[in-house]
Amino acid sequence: MQKKLIVSAVQQPCGDDNPQVNLEFSIAKIREAAAAKADLVVLPELHLGKYFCQTEDHSVFDLAQPIPCETTDILSALAKELSIVIVATIFERRAAGLYHNTAVVFDKDGSIAGKYRKMHIPDDPAFYEKYYFTPGDLGFTPIQTSIGKLGVLICWDQWYPEAARLMALAGADVLIYPTAIGWDKNDTKEEQGRQLDAWITVQRGHAVANGLPVISCNRIGFEFAPNSDSGIDFWGNSFIVGSQGEFLVHANATDTQLLTAEIDLVRSETVRRIWPFLRDRRIDAFGDLIKRFID
Amino acid sequence: MQKKLIVSAVQQPCGDDNPQVNLEFSIAKIREAAAAKADLVVLPELHLGKYFCQTEDHSVFDLAQPIPCETTDILSALAKELSIVIVATIFERRAAGLYHNTAVVFDKDGSIAGKYRKMHIPDDPAFYEKYYFTPGDLGFTPIQTSIGKLGVLICWDQWYPEAARLMALAGADVLIYPTAIGWDKNDTKEEQGRQLDAWITVQRGHAVANGLPVISCNRIGFEFAPNSDSGIDFWGNSFIVGSQGEFLVHANATDTQLLTAEIDLVRSETVRRIWPFLRDRRIDAFGDLIKRFID
Repeated sequence: MQKKLIVSAVQQPCGDDNPQVNLEFSIAKIREAAAAKADLVVLPELHLGKYFCQTEDHSVFDLAQPIPCETTDILSALAKELSIVIVATIFERRAAGLYHNTAVVFDKDGSIAGKYRKMHIPDDPAFYEKYYFTPGDLGFTPIQTSIGKLGVLICWDQWYPEAARLMALAGADVLIYPTAIGWDKNDTKEEQGRQLDAWITVQRGHAVANGLPVISCNRIGFEFAPNSDSGIDFWGNSFIVGSQGEFLVHANATDTQLLTAEIDLVRSETVRRIWPFLRDRRIDAFGDLIKRFID
Repeated sequence: MQKKLIVSAVQQPCGDDNPQVNLEFSIAKIREAAAAKADLVVLPELHLGKYFCQTEDHSVFDLAQPIPCETTDILSALAKELSIVIVATIFERRAAGLYHNTAVVFDKDGSIAGKYRKMHIPDDPAFYEKYYFTPGDLGFTPIQTSIGKLGVLICWDQWYPEAARLMALAGADVLIYPTAIGWDKNDTKEEQGRQLDAWITVQRGHAVANGLPVISCNRIGFEFAPNSDSGIDFWGNSFIVGSQGEFLVHANATDTQLLTAEIDLVRSETVRRIWPFLRDRRIDAFGDLIKRFID
């Protein structure tokens, strides 16, 4: 395993009606990342198209693809050509009536190193994901690649310290969050600010609590809900932080940006020696974490 | 239960050799908080004296006190006189050879509402707590008071998302961290900055992940280790944040400050409706959280 990795996150719009256009945009950015000698590049959640969960619509299931599929074949070939690890997410058709929100990790040799099926599925007005995605059944298992163990989680997972911890306990070298999150224009600027800050803070907190770097990759752009004048203003702000939660790079709310940073896995070892949280966890007293609530 | 609470944190030095002096300083600040109509006031960790864990010394155990003791009698009477809830921490002598780092909560009627014995005990150069304190055996149990359920944790606990979550699952209305944490002067300014920021971030992350306000109360001042020219520069920065992790008040690194803020427990309910994290926890997949590591 390498001790230093150059890692990239592609903050981009994904709103073109033609998935081919969105994918080609991503591919151009992956080529840029490879030219900057990146070992790893992360795309936003469900980057092939508009965030389709703003409404519940049977016909949307037509967008789902099995894994492998033409999209994964293209990304496999690209990973091999550029010798780069790629983290993509696919609307996975597993069987008729059974769909997942699934991250696919392509190793430098073009093979599929592993999949992660989103475990925590949100459901809120304009984020009707429980309609589309069955909760994942692959657990919180890091994906072994030639550059290390990738703790890939997806969007709503980012609010759950349990998910980050389980990835860390299973030996993840880095936490990775492809995301599609944004503002409701009807919220006040103050509320929008609190939401964005909370989203950044909780993920940086996972870095701190686990002594691991975190890569969070969000889309940008306003996307209207179908037949509506409302929609989601995706807030960008993709970032990469080190194992003390310190910012390495941080994008703005509006622009396409290829974020690139060097993360040092030896630094994680050092940080965990300074702050040996894993040494002292009171696992004898954690049994109630598997309860819904303690009534 | 009240829906809005005025809460205070007393950021103060605790370094006088005479515990009476430190306690009287605290009492004056508690009176100030009460004059500002506070319902609750939090003191820093082990506020009666210098942070004695910089060395391992048998004679230090002479400082330990049973609960109740003269100190708790004084604070009980004060809580009753001022009709205020007080969170103090005591070096508890439970039996010969058995000592704890223990928070004591005094209700408005002067009664002891409950105790919390620090569960996670650190041990690092200059923080030799494993020598002095047996890990707590009261679990992560909020303390019921007349103003709500207080999720009292202590210092090193603040790095553990599990501790905050268990308090939330057990119905805590607010998370409270009395603390004694500071800088090693030998660290670079950059490292000192990362450490302070990580400390703030991870606790704000607990607020976000659990939809709860957090009160964190640290001491200030430089304290030399015995017979040494080294020591700890306690970094203050006490703060109170709301249930989205947003700052309500935040102290600086050097000054005595009585922080006071209004926290709104109805806001926690609203925030948890916007972000219903508790609804979606994958408790079916959290079993490994009670493992030390997944080898």
